Amino acid sequence: VEGAVQAARTYGVTIVLVGDESRIKSELAKYPDAATLPIEIVHTSQYITMEDKPATVGKQKPESSIHIGLDLVEKGDCQGFVSCGNTGAILAVTTLYKVKRISGIYRPALGSIVPFAGKAIILIDVGANVDSKPEWLVQFAMMGEIYAKHALKIDRPRVALLSNGEEESKGYSLIHETAPLLKEMKFHFVGNVEPKEMVKASADVFVCDGFVGNMVAKSLEAMGSIMFETLKTQIVEGGIISRLGGLILRSTFREVYKAFNPFEIGGVPLLGVNGVVVIGHGRSNALAVKNAIRQAREAVQVGVVEAIKRGLEERQMASPSESY
Amino acid sequence: VEGAVQAARTYGVTIVLVGDESRIKSELAKYPDAATLPIEIVHTSQYITMEDKPATVGKQKPESSIHIGLDLVEKGDCQGFVSCGNTGAILAVTTLYKVKRISGIYRPALGSIVPFAGKAIILIDVGANVDSKPEWLVQFAMMGEIYAKHALKIDRPRVALLSNGEEESKGYSLIHETAPLLKEMKFHFVGNVEPKEMVKASADVFVCDGFVGNMVAKSLEAMGSIMFETLKTQIVEGGIISRLGGLILRSTFREVYKAFNPFEIGGVPLLGVNGVVVIGHGRSNALAVKNAIRQAREAVQVGVVEAIKRGLEERQMASPSESY
Repeated sequence: VEGAVQAARTYGVTIVLVGDESRIKSELAKYPDAATLPIEIVHTSQYITMEDKPATVGKQKPESSIHIGLDLVEKGDCQGFVSCGNTGAILAVTTLYKVKRISGIYRPALGSIVPFAGKAIILIDVGANVDSKPEWLVQFAMMGEIYAKHALKIDRPRVALLSNGEEESKGYSLIHETAPLLKEMKFHFVGNVEPKEMVKASADVFVCDGFVGNMVAKSLEAMGSIMFETLKTQIVEGGIISRLGGLILRSTFREVYKAFNPFEIGGVPLLGVNGVVVIGHGRSNALAVKNAIRQAREAVQVGVVEAIKRGLEERQMASPSESY
Repeated sequence: VEGAVQAARTYGVTIVLVGDESRIKSELAKYPDAATLPIEIVHTSQYITMEDKPATVGKQKPESSIHIGLDLVEKGDCQGFVSCGNTGAILAVTTLYKVKRISGIYRPALGSIVPFAGKAIILIDVGANVDSKPEWLVQFAMMGEIYAKHALKIDRPRVALLSNGEEESKGYSLIHETAPLLKEMKFHFVGNVEPKEMVKASADVFVCDGFVGNMVAKSLEAMGSIMFETLKTQIVEGGIISRLGGLILRSTFREVYKAFNPFEIGGVPLLGVNGVVVIGHGRSNALAVKNAIRQAREAVQVGVVEAIKRGLEERQMASPSESY
């Protein structure tokens, strides 16, 4: 709610809060200007927990905030949907019940902007799909390219295939089958690259299977956390002089932390569906929610969904059948 | 050569340096005590470059230092082999030409000790295999368990399956097929875990496919580097007070860097072959080489190869055929 209030104040967008009305109202009451902001409430009687199984929740909880929120987008009452709920459930409900995938898209994918100290790259897919097929990855590349154009403001994004080495012999079967397809298409394809090229931003779009992308994203996050924690502990435990050093560098540490903080970006858009859907981290704070709403607004403004439809046509890479 | 000299001084092991005799001799000449150390030289006329293709190099360069070094192990003239050369070539020559895999092992695997600020875990496989099969991963778990016992000094190592979530529904087909097999075996199996559990050392052995493990290891390494670099740049560019803070915390930074530095460990053993083979990073410094030699010595002393053979028998998990 705090993130929504901040977004309503800052971006001049109308926010529809979908959930338990009384709880939302008591949260909103904390902000004196809330009544003057363009914030509406749609009450829902059900909610999906983090423990709910994505495979069954679509049918079992048709009145959940995820269903109702996505329904508002499907009907055109809202232009975008932002949620920090159960990712699997959002994927399942979006793909199978509401909004649904764009015709010709094999699989929607999560395209995450990953910040590295002033640089930023797009990693796609970070977890919507596992056991991916080469033709899916080619579509991920197309969607990542479109997202890089609007979100990173890059005219001709460089596309890379994330692998464990530059050589064609490196990688695994999916990489070996996908690389030739990416070369054939009119991408600005820079080849197979290692994770270290992400932190250098040697390309703008890094394409991979969703399991691999999720593992990479989670490894980067885990390493960032442990290093900051370890530094903090060592400084605090290092005695008074060490703590003085920590005090002097406090703003530097804060800046560096911010430079890697995904909450500064917001959430991760689900690309390839018939509407703007942004999924936030379950641990999102108000800043992350506010930024996720900004992301959704920008995606609507630049017409990402239409751009992906055009991309499918222009590159003639639509899936041959509608079967899922 | 410097690392070998240090190891010969410290560990009382005989070092056989395999390579270009005249170049090795001129390097050794830098160390006044080298002549008194147990260091021998075996001259080789060929060497495998980082650009050589692993698939063909086994046949093309039979006099390479990798072939000759491994031959010394196969013949029993040396007890272990350490190389910081072309990993793919070492894998290929070891598996197909010299030393070879232990009978009943589907695939040798690289079991890396990953240090996280005073904690350490084993990640297996970090790159020997791609497109792994469930029964390979079960053997990786067994070999990782044995390696954890001797290298981490843990009586009953906790084994985890590296995944993108704890839930059984998370992961991909390989995870779904491997988890039940690991549960059946008498491992101290703690379930499917995310990368963040590695940095917490919630388990001792983290099992995964070699592509996934390589991506995770490389992501951790890349994040560590960029964070240290960014901190350093910000401190230096932050003006005189900031630089003073950096000066005060210099030893803290050094300690934290060391606490994550894989070179403190040495190299990565190739487990599942008929001899002790330790592969070092291509960028290894003298410290890393010295530590890789220490690792090889320890692996010989505790009899890792024999322990793996016993593990195969005791757990009845030998591959049914000898076909590769």
